[in-house]
Amino acid sequence: MRYESSPEKETHMTEAAEKDALVLFMPSGKRGRFPLGMPVLDAARKLGVYVESVCGGRATCGRCQVSVQEGNFAKHQIVSSNDHLSPVGAKEERYDKVRGLPEGRRLSCSALIQGDLVIDVPQDTVVNAQVVRKAATDRVIERNAAVQLCYVEVDEPDMHKPLGDLDRMKAILEKDWGWKNLLIAPHIVPEVQSTLRKGNWGVTAAIHRDMDSSRPFIVSLWPGLKNEAYGIACDIGSTTIAMHLVSLLSGRIVASSGTSNPQIRFGEDLMSRVSYVMMNPDGREAMTSAVREAVNMLIGKVCAEGGVDRHDILDLVFVANPIMHHLFLGIDPTELGQAPFALAVSGAMQYWAHELDIDVNRGARTYLLPCIAGHVGADAAGATLAEGPYRQDGMMLLVDVGTNAEIVLGNRARVVAASSPTGPAFEGAEISSGQRAAPGAIERVRIDPATLEPRFRVIGVDKWSDEEGFEEAAATVGVTGICGSAIIEVVAEMYLSGIISEDGVVDGSLMEKSPRIIQNGRTFSYLLRDGEPRITVTQNDVRAIQLAKAALYAGIKLLMEKQGVEKVDTIRFAGAFGSFIDPKYAMVLGLIPDCDLAEVKAVGNAAGTGALMALLNRGHRREIEEMVKKIEKIETALESNFQQLFVNAMAMPNKVDAFPELAKVVTLPERKVTSDDGGEGGGRRRRRSRGE
Amino acid sequence: MRYESSPEKETHMTEAAEKDALVLFMPSGKRGRFPLGMPVLDAARKLGVYVESVCGGRATCGRCQVSVQEGNFAKHQIVSSNDHLSPVGAKEERYDKVRGLPEGRRLSCSALIQGDLVIDVPQDTVVNAQVVRKAATDRVIERNAAVQLCYVEVDEPDMHKPLGDLDRMKAILEKDWGWKNLLIAPHIVPEVQSTLRKGNWGVTAAIHRDMDSSRPFIVSLWPGLKNEAYGIACDIGSTTIAMHLVSLLSGRIVASSGTSNPQIRFGEDLMSRVSYVMMNPDGREAMTSAVREAVNMLIGKVCAEGGVDRHDILDLVFVANPIMHHLFLGIDPTELGQAPFALAVSGAMQYWAHELDIDVNRGARTYLLPCIAGHVGADAAGATLAEGPYRQDGMMLLVDVGTNAEIVLGNRARVVAASSPTGPAFEGAEISSGQRAAPGAIERVRIDPATLEPRFRVIGVDKWSDEEGFEEAAATVGVTGICGSAIIEVVAEMYLSGIISEDGVVDGSLMEKSPRIIQNGRTFSYLLRDGEPRITVTQNDVRAIQLAKAALYAGIKLLMEKQGVEKVDTIRFAGAFGSFIDPKYAMVLGLIPDCDLAEVKAVGNAAGTGALMALLNRGHRREIEEMVKKIEKIETALESNFQQLFVNAMAMPNKVDAFPELAKVVTLPERKVTSDDGGEGGGRRRRRSRGE
Repeated sequence: MRYESSPEKETHMTEAAEKDALVLFMPSGKRGRFPLGMPVLDAARKLGVYVESVCGGRATCGRCQVSVQEGNFAKHQIVSSNDHLSPVGAKEERYDKVRGLPEGRRLSCSALIQGDLVIDVPQDTVVNAQVVRKAATDRVIERNAAVQLCYVEVDEPDMHKPLGDLDRMKAILEKDWGWKNLLIAPHIVPEVQSTLRKGNWGVTAAIHRDMDSSRPFIVSLWPGLKNEAYGIACDIGSTTIAMHLVSLLSGRIVASSGTSNPQIRFGEDLMSRVSYVMMNPDGREAMTSAVREAVNMLIGKVCAEGGVDRHDILDLVFVANPIMHHLFLGIDPTELGQAPFALAVSGAMQYWAHELDIDVNRGARTYLLPCIAGHVGADAAGATLAEGPYRQDGMMLLVDVGTNAEIVLGNRARVVAASSPTGPAFEGAEISSGQRAAPGAIERVRIDPATLEPRFRVIGVDKWSDEEGFEEAAATVGVTGICGSAIIEVVAEMYLSGIISEDGVVDGSLMEKSPRIIQNGRTFSYLLRDGEPRITVTQNDVRAIQLAKAALYAGIKLLMEKQGVEKVDTIRFAGAFGSFIDPKYAMVLGLIPDCDLAEVKAVGNAAGTGALMALLNRGHRREIEEMVKKIEKIETALESNFQQLFVNAMAMPNKVDAFPELAKVVTLPERKVTSDDGGEGGGRRRRRSRGE
Repeated sequence: MRYESSPEKETHMTEAAEKDALVLFMPSGKRGRFPLGMPVLDAARKLGVYVESVCGGRATCGRCQVSVQEGNFAKHQIVSSNDHLSPVGAKEERYDKVRGLPEGRRLSCSALIQGDLVIDVPQDTVVNAQVVRKAATDRVIERNAAVQLCYVEVDEPDMHKPLGDLDRMKAILEKDWGWKNLLIAPHIVPEVQSTLRKGNWGVTAAIHRDMDSSRPFIVSLWPGLKNEAYGIACDIGSTTIAMHLVSLLSGRIVASSGTSNPQIRFGEDLMSRVSYVMMNPDGREAMTSAVREAVNMLIGKVCAEGGVDRHDILDLVFVANPIMHHLFLGIDPTELGQAPFALAVSGAMQYWAHELDIDVNRGARTYLLPCIAGHVGADAAGATLAEGPYRQDGMMLLVDVGTNAEIVLGNRARVVAASSPTGPAFEGAEISSGQRAAPGAIERVRIDPATLEPRFRVIGVDKWSDEEGFEEAAATVGVTGICGSAIIEVVAEMYLSGIISEDGVVDGSLMEKSPRIIQNGRTFSYLLRDGEPRITVTQNDVRAIQLAKAALYAGIKLLMEKQGVEKVDTIRFAGAFGSFIDPKYAMVLGLIPDCDLAEVKAVGNAAGTGALMALLNRGHRREIEEMVKKIEKIETALESNFQQLFVNAMAMPNKVDAFPELAKVVTLPERKVTSDDGGEGGGRRRRRSRGE
């Protein structure tokens, strides 16, 4: 069986046209006419329908299972029946006896077309059913992995034709599977002879067909039939490294996990890590080692969870922000810390995993998505691939909030991208009671506009703070601070309940009305929880959030101006921050522009999902490589009106005409702009209300 | 200036045809019409005439020198004159001042075509003239090295177009030099930014354009202009490793040297080394390390001799016999020690030099010529490339004698190859007074047919043994034994002087005539030199040479039968053995078939010459890869008549009709065949005279 059809077969198809059967594959909907007697697998391949097969049509690997949808599909003019397949033969029967074939399933390499058919290609072939699938994403990723396993039976040596063992293996891989111009990973060369003899001349070769060299590569070799190979999709964040372990053959996600980025010990945020590199002669090496070790450790963790041997991992896809990207590759990131923020490399990169000290199969490859710009990294490219603004008719805003906010805005016609310097306030840093999202952190806040009394929820506790039994439950974890999402909520609630003005000033006059308003030197704070520790929201906290949200909003507004739009159709919040915040409060605070709230969605680790897509379908690699070239990169520092947009964005949204969608879900306070913000000042943060 | 012409230029050329000038390049003889005003370098490139240039037409590297042949070349309808070039401009003048341009030379990047021209491309551009050229071979190898140095000036980073530094460098390499789809060696990636800044955005990239991936690769990078790169051509023999250090830009051989293969400590001959691997668990590794260390040591030696930094070596080509080839690549050679003598790999192989532990430039590549068969290695492929039987009309016999004799026979129409098990007798092993070719070894022998008295020459002594002062001179080195070439001569002279019969029996009856014939148990010996040590040629020595020459001749005869020829037109002796033996004696003894003695030549290390050709011209790599596929491989062990040919070849040639060319130069003894060989026997060596 050849992967590419031979000319003879094509001829046959034409001649026998009147005897052809119509075959429709689901869920892809691809259809075609094929001669009677052709294996269903061959028909699938001719149409480009992805059906896995390792054994080369020997009915031993069981990867090519399909089932028939019976019935009269009038719309497609097909009457489909299991009778339109050849009866189960000896090979299929043997497979069923030895390994078991689920009810209704056929091996498409052995089932021959005898009439019109509607064929179901299971999207998750059950070969190893005991591992529970974890839904990392609901998205169905069409499978077209870079690595394919190919079983072949190699001719034994012949003194009359003294081709090397490797050369004969290549010849049969071309004959049986259509691989032309095969190369081989150097480490395999010394093992070819012993592997062939161990497998009694039957071997499974892992072929990588997405090498940057453009030629297919034998990257691994096993004696006999090897029926499974795995891949890793990994997002290297400044704070967290997240990873999926995936079957490259079935597409099944075997395990997902995350770990802290151990580089945190060199500096909490990215710029402090760049400084560390600049100040320490071996700083770059230390950080490169740290992140690679963490990746190795995490691979060990997902493999243990999934019961997978790490040496069965053959392909890895990474996304990362530019500084993590450079440090992971061993590149000094110093240039990224200063204008003109020059990336050492922006295009997609490929390496052998061992070149990056990743301990998996010796022939495993790594692929890194391209970076978009000096502040908009491969992680933003991954999120862009996952959410696909360029696949939309409507205008999509994609926001990933970290220390910088990466912003992508666009549709099918045009995509623009920028990074905005939000600072770490959204992550709970620079906030008096801020902390990371962890048990004990306040994650939800409501303030009664009448009494100004708060109620809140704490991570690790099931109840709201005003429910019975809360204190007992909270005592077991301890209430320790406010995490990023709750800071958004509490400031928004303070605004909605009138505690702060639209300019962000805490109204000291409310001290008379509520003991929750307390004086704090020249400014006032809101007491969220009394006790140990005492948790307050200070005027400085409100200012920090205002600065962060102004930076984010100014960046978004800049891109909207570039696109010439006043409104976006959909908003996608990527990243951990986006997963926890309530879109309503994000809009109340003015983090995001007006939008139908039903169209504002948190999409979790979209960067990781993009990595997963690139892992399972190499077509997505070309897609994002091309897209990144087309995206218009906007550098906020070079835009003359960015500063003005920033200043304008300091206040809270209060105009119904500017935020009509927001006005549908909350009552926006209609108050005068205060003339004083409580003593703080400075040229950068001039007070001006929105819309003036 | 682009390496490939742009479509616009082509159009221009057609339109301006009437104004075109005719330019003829020598020595290639390539010619074409080009528009006035085009640089000579561009014209050369359009015709595929190899002119080196590193600086990209900036007139700074001086690599592209040419000169004009003035005169009326009626045959070519060209009147050529220096006036037909644009006058020397400011850039050329500056180069001449700074670095000096030899009389009559022009920089072809700056000299514009103004009329018809005959251009001389110097085959050895003198840029570094103080290094004396050593003639490793007279052959002119057309230069088309795999590595090209390309100087570019990279755009500085631009925040509006945030392409990575590497990506901008690739873009300019495509724009200035035409390199599309460039890849980069991973180790360079972290150095790109600092190199660009060190060179103030001017860098020289080494592009390898013969990677097995088919895509050009940036393999090294230097700040500023880098004007020289080197290559290594190396033959890894069982006994000796030989090496040339070559300028990849000028083709100049900078140094040549050799060293013993340190694997000798694991076993003198190849089979004993295979046994060592089989008997010792870490034997393969030990031998791989030994040969790689020796290669590294030898690189150090040629670099020291040539005053070259080993890190400027960018490309290496290796040839070796199959067992050395496998051991060098780290492949267990055990399969080569037993039928069916399966090579692990037969095709040409490429590696990064560091993958083979070769300490040169980190981005250097290695290329290994293909092996022809289990006993006919990459060394035989190299010799085949160098001597090119497939380029001849006449029938060429190419013989490389070592422990095995590798035999290639063919012409333009068809080439056949085989290996014959000669054993080590020709190398002086298994001979009672045999030794390696070294000072003190007898290397030439003559025997007076009348008196049976010998005279001989000794390596390290200028005089023949019968000349005055010989003994004094010989005393300084000591006469220690007979080397391979002298063994051929002494046995041949013993035959010509009647001491041995055509069946190889030493005639004991001659004891009465000469004290040189001495009894040795049941057989007789010839006393070559009395003294300490006593040097004799025993009956067993003669038998050993007879066995070896019979094996060689039988192999040659087998291939002649395959080709259906009775006579060959040319004979080439490759290897050290071939360099020392006198073709006449080889023919007297029956090592080689009848042939005009003027057409029998020793070609030295032809395998090394082949490596050199593949190093300097990547076209030769494709040539030998294709040729090796076409060569018909004959396995003597599988040929039913090889045994008979072997038996037939035991006797000495004595028939004038079978050896008419030989009969022109010596008087062949015409005697009866003896009925007894002096006591030795055995089924394998049945006595039968030739021609019966």
